[in-house]
Order: sequence, then C-alpha cells, then structure tokens
Amino acid sequence: MVRIAICAPGKPLKRERADAVEALVAGRKDVSLAFHEQCFAEEGHFAGSDAVRLAALLDCANDPSVDAVWFAMGGYGSNRIAAAAIAQMNGAARQKSYLGYSDTGFLLGALYRNGIGRVAHGPLAGDIRREGGAGTIERALGWLTGSDEGLEPHLDERPAAAFNLTTLAMLVGTDLAPDLSGHVVMVEEVAEHLYAVDRLFFHVTQHLPEIAGLRLGRISEVPENDRPFGSDEVAIAQDWCRRSGIPYLGRADIGHDAANRIVPFGLEARRPRA
Amino acid sequence: MVRIAICAPGKPLKRERADAVEALVAGRKDVSLAFHEQCFAEEGHFAGSDAVRLAALLDCANDPSVDAVWFAMGGYGSNRIAAAAIAQMNGAARQKSYLGYSDTGFLLGALYRNGIGRVAHGPLAGDIRREGGAGTIERALGWLTGSDEGLEPHLDERPAAAFNLTTLAMLVGTDLAPDLSGHVVMVEEVAEHLYAVDRLFFHVTQHLPEIAGLRLGRISEVPENDRPFGSDEVAIAQDWCRRSGIPYLGRADIGHDAANRIVPFGLEARRPRA
Repeated sequence: MVRIAICAPGKPLKRERADAVEALVAGRKDVSLAFHEQCFAEEGHFAGSDAVRLAALLDCANDPSVDAVWFAMGGYGSNRIAAAAIAQMNGAARQKSYLGYSDTGFLLGALYRNGIGRVAHGPLAGDIRREGGAGTIERALGWLTGSDEGLEPHLDERPAAAFNLTTLAMLVGTDLAPDLSGHVVMVEEVAEHLYAVDRLFFHVTQHLPEIAGLRLGRISEVPENDRPFGSDEVAIAQDWCRRSGIPYLGRADIGHDAANRIVPFGLEARRPRA
Repeated sequence: MVRIAICAPGKPLKRERADAVEALVAGRKDVSLAFHEQCFAEEGHFAGSDAVRLAALLDCANDPSVDAVWFAMGGYGSNRIAAAAIAQMNGAARQKSYLGYSDTGFLLGALYRNGIGRVAHGPLAGDIRREGGAGTIERALGWLTGSDEGLEPHLDERPAAAFNLTTLAMLVGTDLAPDLSGHVVMVEEVAEHLYAVDRLFFHVTQHLPEIAGLRLGRISEVPENDRPFGSDEVAIAQDWCRRSGIPYLGRADIGHDAANRIVPFGLEARRPRA
C-alpha cells in the first residue's frame, strides 16, 4: 500500500475534483489517498496563507506514515514557502516521492537542490479536470506506486529535469535553484505570448550554459497578439540554444495538458522505490 | 546644438508620432532630431530584423556627429541585439547620452555595465502618444540637452538605476546585467497581474541582495484576475524587501505614463554634459 498525501502549495483544488480522483482509486488495495484539508482553503490568490500552506506541506512531507507527496494544483505561490519548507523537513521527508509541475516546479527544484526525496515533474491531482484526465491521474499514480510506464519517452542515460518555462526563469539564480549542469532540461509553457517565450528563453539559456541540452515541450494556448511574432516556438528554442551553445535535442512529451508525461529529476529517482 | 539620433531596438514607431515629435522641436536652435528610417521598419514583432535593428543602433551610436541616442519605442527585442551592439560600439558611442525605458532597459543595463555613455531611464519618443505627451517629450529633451529639471525627485547622494520590473527580472544574472550593488534601484510595471508582480519581485530581490534599497514606481493597468491577489503592490514590494534584507525606500515617480521622470544611471550621468 502506497500512501499518498496531497496538499496545495499554490492555488486551491476544487472539492469535486478531489472527489473525482478519490472515486478513481476507490477499491484499489495498492494505493491510498489523503487530501489535506488545506487543499480547499482560500485566501486571496492562494490556498490559504503562506503559514497555512507551509504547515500543510510539512504535515504531508514530515509524516513517516506517508510514502509520497502529490501536489494538488499549481497556480503561483510555492516559491513563497519553499525555503521555509526545506528548512523544516525531517528525515521522513527525505524518503518520499514528490510529484507536480507548473508553479510547483519551485518546490521540485528546491527539493532536488537539497537532495530531498525522489522528485518528478508530472501530473497534478487537479489534472482530473482535463479531457482524458482519468488516464492522466492513472499515469501519476503509476509513477508514485513504482511503475515507469508514464515516463517521458526521450529520457536517456543522462540526468534530466523538467519545468514550466516561466517557473524555471524565476527559479534560476535563486536560493531554490538546483545545479542542472549536465542535465537534459525539458521546458513547457502555457498561455504566454511568443515574444514572452522568446524573452524567457533568453534568460534561461543565459543562466544554464552548462546543461547537457534542452528539449522543448508543448507551448500551448498562446494568446493572439496584435501582430504575429514572426517565428514559432521551435525556432525560438533553437535560436537561443544556438546563441548560448546549448544543444537543442528536439521535442519533449510534456505540457499543460492530459498527455503530460513524467520526468524524474536526476537518475536516482528513475529507480523503483526500495 | 545637441544632435539627437533616434532608433527603435524593439517595436516600430508610427510615423505620425515621429512627425508630432518633430513638430514640437521645429524652430528650436538648441536641438535637432534625426529619426533613423529603421524606426518605421516592420518585420514580425519587431522594427526590422535583428540585423536591421542592430545596424541602426550602431549607425546612431557610432556617429561622431551625434550627441545622444534616444530610443523610439520599447516593445520587446533589445535584448536580442544588445550584446552584439556593445561589442561593435566605438569611441564616439562612449561619449553619448542614451535615454529610454521599458524593454530598452536591456540596452541601458548593458551600456551601464560596460561604462558606455551617460545612460538614463526616461521617456521614449513614442510617449508623444500619451495624454500630456508634449510635456513628457519636453522632459526627455531637457535631460538630453543638459537640464536636470525632469529628474526623479527622490534621487539622493547614492547611485541609482531604474527598470521595468519584467525587464530587470529577465536581465539579472545575464551577460548584459550591470553591477547594481550600492545602488538605489527603482522599478515600475505595466499590464501584469499582481501574482506575476509578486513572482518578479521574488526573482529580482533574490538576485540583488547588495543594492542600497528599492523604490517602487507605478504598477499600472493591472489586469482583472479571476480572484483578488489579496495585497497591493506596496505590500508586495515591502514583503520581498523584508525577506531579502533590502531596504524599502518608498515610491518612485516613474511608470509607463506621461509623468515618468528621469533616472540617470550612476552618479556620473547626473552631471551636465561637458
């Protein structure tokens, strides 16, 4: 039985989505879910104040009876509690798996930087809302329970990491940022203009000249602009990789969508749990 | 006679706006304007390709008969040509004044990093379009011709610099970024959600722990979000200053508006031209 605790470091989860995820696992003997009540808290932009979100994350991470921490939603805010969370994590926190993406990339990065747990970029519990979301949730639960069926198909012998592009741009150079030298770094983005994507690639490639290479996930829901940008996301990524001497390695099967595959950080996290 | 050359490192300028600025200075004996034809070029998002924009910037900066380079518009793109421009600037470029803001902050930063010219954050030629824009243009021309009447009123004995917040966030840690330690740094923003402003402050304050302090310009045209953020821009700036140990010094009279005052970079640029 793999016991999974769920909290929301950024925005809240709608209760009916938690119900839908619980319905999916009803009757399964190999996995149990515990949605922390904080998932449903609301305070301004966030699922509760910084103090509330931090306490919930530590409740989940530091509980020795819990095997994995799964993030409910992204939505901005995990950077506000990440440093304090790392500082208060105990030995039990170091034995767990952690899964999420989007804004929770701040936490994934900070955990990986500090060698805490098995960290992976992949579906959130809230992805149940997407068309095909049941399969998305099964993929996440699969990884959390030891399967490697949902792994991103381009993973090779090199360590990897994956991030939302904006999140990575705001992470690089901060106290939360892991050393990604030698890593294949995969990035995805949603709802950003292509000029902003171009600007983010400038920043990220300037900060990460030592990575092994870059793979481009899906750049989805690009808003219409008053004028066309003049190139597409592949040309943008290739351009900044060329300028910075980073090998462009092709596409990655990640994105803000139901098909989002799982990218464990580093090599250690690809091994099944002991 | 102060000779001012104008180019557009990001987006194009509308020709009627150049006409309106020229009409303002018609008959003045102390200043002449030369709008580079590149200001009106269009290629995708930009006022011409990178090569076209770079060549125009160098035409203006490297011309020994020109006293000042004034940027026509912001709009994204100056980071794409800044490093190449710096590398090709000559001795004449080092004697000039440079004025702009918004996206052209990438260039201001790179010029200041490299000790090239007198650099200031202040109105663009395209600000003529704003209500009260004639006064805005007079303020810019005043600084470019040796007046200090348009200076930001909180400047003190410490060196200062000013940036659009997004531009500064994308600049920090890159090859274009100046050393801002000991500087009073002023920031302004336009058309960003408060959660994004909060995220940008996280990134910027993490990168600039050694600055003398931060002043908050106007955060304007904040889009409506699906939920309120829960605090305002002053609380956001104060929070991240407190977290990072940066003194919060109060407001700054800068912004994406007609009232945008002038912030020379460093102390040297505050002295009238020799």
